[in-house]
Amino acid sequence: MRSSAMRDLMEITARPEVISLAGGLPDTSTFPPESFAAQMTRIAQESSAEALQYGPTEGFARTKDVICEVMGAEGMHPEVEDVLVTTGGQQALDLVAKTLLDPGDVVVAEGPTYPGAVPVFCSYEADTRQVSIDAEGMRIDALLETLDALEREGRRPKFIYSVPTFQNPGGVTMSLQRRRRLVEIARERELLILEDNPYGMLRYEGDPLPSLYALDGGDYVLYTGTFSKILSPGIRVGWLCAPPPVMEKVVLGKQAADLCTSTLTQYFVGEFFAEGRWREYIADVAAIYRQRRDAMLDALERFFPEEATWSRPQGGLFVWATLPDYIDTTDLLAKALRENVAFVPGEAAFVGGLGKTSMRLNFSAQTEDEIREGVRRIGRVIGEQLDLYRTITGEHRIPPAAPEAGPAGDVLPLRRAGRRRT
Amino acid sequence: MRSSAMRDLMEITARPEVISLAGGLPDTSTFPPESFAAQMTRIAQESSAEALQYGPTEGFARTKDVICEVMGAEGMHPEVEDVLVTTGGQQALDLVAKTLLDPGDVVVAEGPTYPGAVPVFCSYEADTRQVSIDAEGMRIDALLETLDALEREGRRPKFIYSVPTFQNPGGVTMSLQRRRRLVEIARERELLILEDNPYGMLRYEGDPLPSLYALDGGDYVLYTGTFSKILSPGIRVGWLCAPPPVMEKVVLGKQAADLCTSTLTQYFVGEFFAEGRWREYIADVAAIYRQRRDAMLDALERFFPEEATWSRPQGGLFVWATLPDYIDTTDLLAKALRENVAFVPGEAAFVGGLGKTSMRLNFSAQTEDEIREGVRRIGRVIGEQLDLYRTITGEHRIPPAAPEAGPAGDVLPLRRAGRRRT
Repeated sequence: MRSSAMRDLMEITARPEVISLAGGLPDTSTFPPESFAAQMTRIAQESSAEALQYGPTEGFARTKDVICEVMGAEGMHPEVEDVLVTTGGQQALDLVAKTLLDPGDVVVAEGPTYPGAVPVFCSYEADTRQVSIDAEGMRIDALLETLDALEREGRRPKFIYSVPTFQNPGGVTMSLQRRRRLVEIARERELLILEDNPYGMLRYEGDPLPSLYALDGGDYVLYTGTFSKILSPGIRVGWLCAPPPVMEKVVLGKQAADLCTSTLTQYFVGEFFAEGRWREYIADVAAIYRQRRDAMLDALERFFPEEATWSRPQGGLFVWATLPDYIDTTDLLAKALRENVAFVPGEAAFVGGLGKTSMRLNFSAQTEDEIREGVRRIGRVIGEQLDLYRTITGEHRIPPAAPEAGPAGDVLPLRRAGRRRT
Repeated sequence: MRSSAMRDLMEITARPEVISLAGGLPDTSTFPPESFAAQMTRIAQESSAEALQYGPTEGFARTKDVICEVMGAEGMHPEVEDVLVTTGGQQALDLVAKTLLDPGDVVVAEGPTYPGAVPVFCSYEADTRQVSIDAEGMRIDALLETLDALEREGRRPKFIYSVPTFQNPGGVTMSLQRRRRLVEIARERELLILEDNPYGMLRYEGDPLPSLYALDGGDYVLYTGTFSKILSPGIRVGWLCAPPPVMEKVVLGKQAADLCTSTLTQYFVGEFFAEGRWREYIADVAAIYRQRRDAMLDALERFFPEEATWSRPQGGLFVWATLPDYIDTTDLLAKALRENVAFVPGEAAFVGGLGKTSMRLNFSAQTEDEIREGVRRIGRVIGEQLDLYRTITGEHRIPPAAPEAGPAGDVLPLRRAGRRRT
């Protein structure tokens, strides 16, 4: 799916009659408007001229302190000078790619990977190699296969991009064992990893796992986080942690890209965290999203056909569902939109043509009722496709399941993670 | 001057004891805090969830309407679909470069050019050719020489970058005749121009001239503007106007770069302009800056040596001063900083080593008294250098003036524009 198609999709889904399970939108109506107003009034009264002025390229010291506080809550303790404030996490990804990649350079990413990473890798003309995932995240055997194959070509990836926790779009979380192994591989082979962790604090069950950054200590692992999912995406404030030799170049790229991240919205972050209630706010949001996730998983069991599988995320915003291989989700989307419901076709999470039978479903942006209704509508459209297939093939039995594990680069249906209708 | 040195400079000049004539900062203390507070409160009450949410990559329709209103006030009437909201004008420049340039591609720019453009062109490994300016802006004869020389090499610039009005850093404005000729050349030779106009509305004397965009009608001229100098740079909201084939690619780059420009600060722009008093606000700011410009020009006459020349801007934020050729302004800056005063050395406005005897002086960020004191201190440091030169050379007369016009790529001392001590 081309990026422009992705944009058209986002435009269509902005229509009020459409139930969009497509975007990765947090529910910003959970943020108290009176708190917003009070913080802004305080900024206006105390720091109007500073908040409206240019700021340092690296971001304000106060913003970086807040970032260190958030990372501390997830067990990470970066040096403050290793932190760069960015215009959303997206910019961190873009700047790392801009800094490290020349046309034709290899990047390794999960398959599926964050759909917003695909246009970044493409825009720098990277040779993107995707490594399949299963219920425990990136498959290390497939990664090693990819790295060895590259080595035989005399090539090395410039970096490995991973969303290990509540992966977008897979909904899976990398196991502790694999995290340890991935960091080990990076150290042994002297490879950089870019860990993208937008959702780590949105955990609905289970115990937190150490980040790759914490396991590595920040030598080989670059780390990007964001306030988008724990405060607001509209402020466009994220960050990157990187060791000095990388950071120095990234900062030059940042300066050329937009001089500095909005000082006004950085002040807003500062005021919000100064209130000291940010962990309660995240807990409130997580409680809402947990119920929505449950609503989605229930609805999938009720309305999706037996042939479908899906992940069961312990946190984050997304479920990844895979349908029988005769269904193309890009075609399915066109039909779903006529029913006023949207999702992201799996193709958007791959650089080259895979993922055609999968879809990403978001559960953070809609109410439980809307989620149920949305999943019901998608289920109906799928059902029509199944009926059509059976009519054409004359088959009335369920077609054979896809193989359990494909070669590196394939999508593994997340069978173990999905609950089946009984 | 390397970009990192430029950043160090900005850091040093943030110290309260330093009178900085270095930055390009508007005076944001002119913006009424009570207006800021009222606008934000209204946003919080009426649109909290929307202002904190992601927005469309292209920007909100309301922001684009405001942009069309501002451009209309300067005699331009773009189609609303030709407008992209960007994260400051800097991002517009970065995205155009990203979209149009491959490594080794030629860009033509004024010499001196906007110091923030230098790292952009360098980061995309452009072959930047600078065309000298005089009191009437970019020298068309020098431009034609450059284009013809390129043609002989079988090359064409991907675009011509120009700040025709109150040029940063030259302080000069391109004459109407040259504007017409430049647009003609672009059309004849089918070349794109990127017109950067951050200061057009900050005119302190004389009549407005039509923009290149207005003269061309938006076929060959791309246009970037910003709210940084007429409202606030801390909000990071600017824009780009480009015809559809270019815009389509730029929007994909924008999506990869930061998904969208801050929705919160776009709402702030919307509220500010809805008040309907923006032209009065700009008039107020311009009145203040005009007095500061006058204070700077007076101080230059009093405190700079007879051998110095400088531009006499009709608007904008900068004066460009050129010293005798045995003074290196990068060395001079080190001495000036010991006197707690800063400027931007001319080198920062060139890609390869020119501009060593020039400096950019900003008059918008400091009070009239500070400007006078800052120029006095720089004048004293220059005086010491002159004395030293005379002692070494045994020369007690003024050294011969630099030639009136250099070859394309040289800096023309802005003799006609500078007033001399009588």
